[in-house]
Amino acid sequence: MVKIAILGYGTVGSGVWEVLQKNQTSIDRNADEQIRVKYVLDLRDFPEDEVQKYIVHDFDTILNDDEIKIVVEVMGGVEPAYTFVKKALLNGKSVVTSNKELVAKYGAKLLKTAKEKNINFLFEASVGGGIPIIRPLNQSLTADEIYEITGILNGTTNYMLTKMSKEGLDYDEVLKTAQDKGYAERNPSADVEGFDACRKIAILLSIAIGKQIDYESIYTEGITNITKADIDYVTQMSMSIKLLASAKIDNNGVWARVSPVIIGYENPLSMVNDVFNAILVKGNVIGDVMFYGKGAGKLPTASAVVADVVDAVKHLNRNIMTAWSSEKLDILDIDGVEVSKFIRISYTDKEKAINAVKNLFGTDKIVFSKNNDYEFAFITNVETEKIINDKINQLINETCVSEVLNTIRFEG
Amino acid sequence: MVKIAILGYGTVGSGVWEVLQKNQTSIDRNADEQIRVKYVLDLRDFPEDEVQKYIVHDFDTILNDDEIKIVVEVMGGVEPAYTFVKKALLNGKSVVTSNKELVAKYGAKLLKTAKEKNINFLFEASVGGGIPIIRPLNQSLTADEIYEITGILNGTTNYMLTKMSKEGLDYDEVLKTAQDKGYAERNPSADVEGFDACRKIAILLSIAIGKQIDYESIYTEGITNITKADIDYVTQMSMSIKLLASAKIDNNGVWARVSPVIIGYENPLSMVNDVFNAILVKGNVIGDVMFYGKGAGKLPTASAVVADVVDAVKHLNRNIMTAWSSEKLDILDIDGVEVSKFIRISYTDKEKAINAVKNLFGTDKIVFSKNNDYEFAFITNVETEKIINDKINQLINETCVSEVLNTIRFEG
Repeated sequence: MVKIAILGYGTVGSGVWEVLQKNQTSIDRNADEQIRVKYVLDLRDFPEDEVQKYIVHDFDTILNDDEIKIVVEVMGGVEPAYTFVKKALLNGKSVVTSNKELVAKYGAKLLKTAKEKNINFLFEASVGGGIPIIRPLNQSLTADEIYEITGILNGTTNYMLTKMSKEGLDYDEVLKTAQDKGYAERNPSADVEGFDACRKIAILLSIAIGKQIDYESIYTEGITNITKADIDYVTQMSMSIKLLASAKIDNNGVWARVSPVIIGYENPLSMVNDVFNAILVKGNVIGDVMFYGKGAGKLPTASAVVADVVDAVKHLNRNIMTAWSSEKLDILDIDGVEVSKFIRISYTDKEKAINAVKNLFGTDKIVFSKNNDYEFAFITNVETEKIINDKINQLINETCVSEVLNTIRFEG
Repeated sequence: MVKIAILGYGTVGSGVWEVLQKNQTSIDRNADEQIRVKYVLDLRDFPEDEVQKYIVHDFDTILNDDEIKIVVEVMGGVEPAYTFVKKALLNGKSVVTSNKELVAKYGAKLLKTAKEKNINFLFEASVGGGIPIIRPLNQSLTADEIYEITGILNGTTNYMLTKMSKEGLDYDEVLKTAQDKGYAERNPSADVEGFDACRKIAILLSIAIGKQIDYESIYTEGITNITKADIDYVTQMSMSIKLLASAKIDNNGVWARVSPVIIGYENPLSMVNDVFNAILVKGNVIGDVMFYGKGAGKLPTASAVVADVVDAVKHLNRNIMTAWSSEKLDILDIDGVEVSKFIRISYTDKEKAINAVKNLFGTDKIVFSKNNDYEFAFITNVETEKIINDKINQLINETCVSEVLNTIRFEG
């Protein structure tokens, strides 16, 4: 029998508790060992709940109990999670976590500590909720050189963009619905500003290249500027708009970006709707492979956490994680990255504005709004971000153009 | 350094050779060990090819060379593959295979032998080509009770159905195109009759339940009866038709089936087009999770084979496969399985035929053909296969009905 402790009895923690009870028989069979919770750490008490008799308030009770072989950290946030996890590993206890902030910031260090102690630090649930992606990247795609990872890694924003697209609603309306349904927090910035997706792509890229990516260096743009008017054009073009977290690896180096992107229906990510997540991985041998499922939620996330616990039980004194070193890798400046953009402008003189666009951008991909006669949009050729931004600045100076209403990255 | 032998220099074998050369550096890094080919077994010689100096014609050369730690079997077919693989395992050599016939028939036995010798028998490439599915089922979905696995497991038929749907072509036309493009064999029956998909779902189900499923007991219907007229209705209903290989596990037992199914756009499998494959797995905790990618082809299949070789190298003297015992599990008779069906009929008297359908089947889901005034289709309620078939036999006896033109399973 293996005794474990759960740190935090919030949404994920109570999900882990529930899954361990619900599927006890099959989980024990898969682990070839009985897995039982001995402690649940939380500041609160839960007098009405069966869990109460396992509740402890002091982490040291867990840390100093040699019977505890695995600690499940599902508190979230960097502190005190980092201190607890570090101490647990140093005391020879394997750690399983769903905490993306912790993993993005200290993943490499904690993996190193786990390796030194010949135990494990596992974090499948930190990216893509229940979707298996960390283990496949580590263990299944080992014959390939991975050159791109692009994901829909945030369910809240995907729900919002899907609803805007399907029901023709504006940003504020769908945000309110998402909040009412519990998909979005009262302070939604971690989701809608792209910060959540940014930490997750940093983790995936770090694993793919085996080096530390500083997530603060990743260009991150959320969905707060996406309007009903933008979506109308996207629908009119029979395309789809998604918040994509992307990382590409080529001979020049590595870059990463989180931003809304207009994509065509031949891109399998275009079919990923509502709260679902998906991660598309491209390898030089395997081609495109995609992993799809529920990227958040109590039970799907708990499923990934408990699967990691099973793996930790099967490898109690054997380190199984591949290398992700603390050596930092600087990513390329986004300015130099080539891209195409969808640009919406309003004008004072339509014909002159069209000519200005054609002259400056060398494109004739112009899309006229069905709903508004005072604006149009165009699709640029593929050029660096910097060149496109310089041209936008020149365009604004033309007297025939009133305003650049929005710019959105475009993959035709 | 670990020395390996490849049995068979056909499509997959030459792909494995190519991948091992192309990505040698990254593969060696992932395996933490140099992996080098010492022998390639083939009856033929390849005098123009660099591989020639590794070619041997006698399996015993490989079998009796203690330096060979891993044998890659990519010949296909049951014999002599089975004899070679068994001998290799008994001689202490781990085996990696892409051979679905071999795995479906002898997987449990070969896993047992590998376990007894504390080595490995790995077969990720036998289902879904490059798509990671065997390893995720074994190692990532261990917290769940899996209650359904449904896949598009054959790229040839998916290409054909996609092309029929998109271009309004008939079966014979797309078969010819598929053969011309090399997607279908000159004798296409293994693909179009569903036999290929049948072996693959048998493997997935066997792993999910840990017992032996006799693939010959799985109801298997191919796509040879699907016509342009059927597809017209599917398009008219804004739905999609796919050859699905399905297995379900519930309190009554286990059943499996390969057949064309009409599915709605909310089913993520509906978005899987052309030669792509996908496997949708449903667990009682994780919900729906889908794995998508190229299900066949030289390099994607070789990617999965080589990833297994890397795993075998990392576990040279340690068995890692979960249990799939030789204990046989009988699957439920398809007659008792509940289903809804799309049924096309022609009539001598339209109003009477409609009434007969309504009376017999208790449904008012009737779809009139846009192209043909001598037929219509209807969707049955969910009932057992047997009850629906009995009602169809009664319907044929009505004088107002001329013919049942086709019946296709339907999941609305």
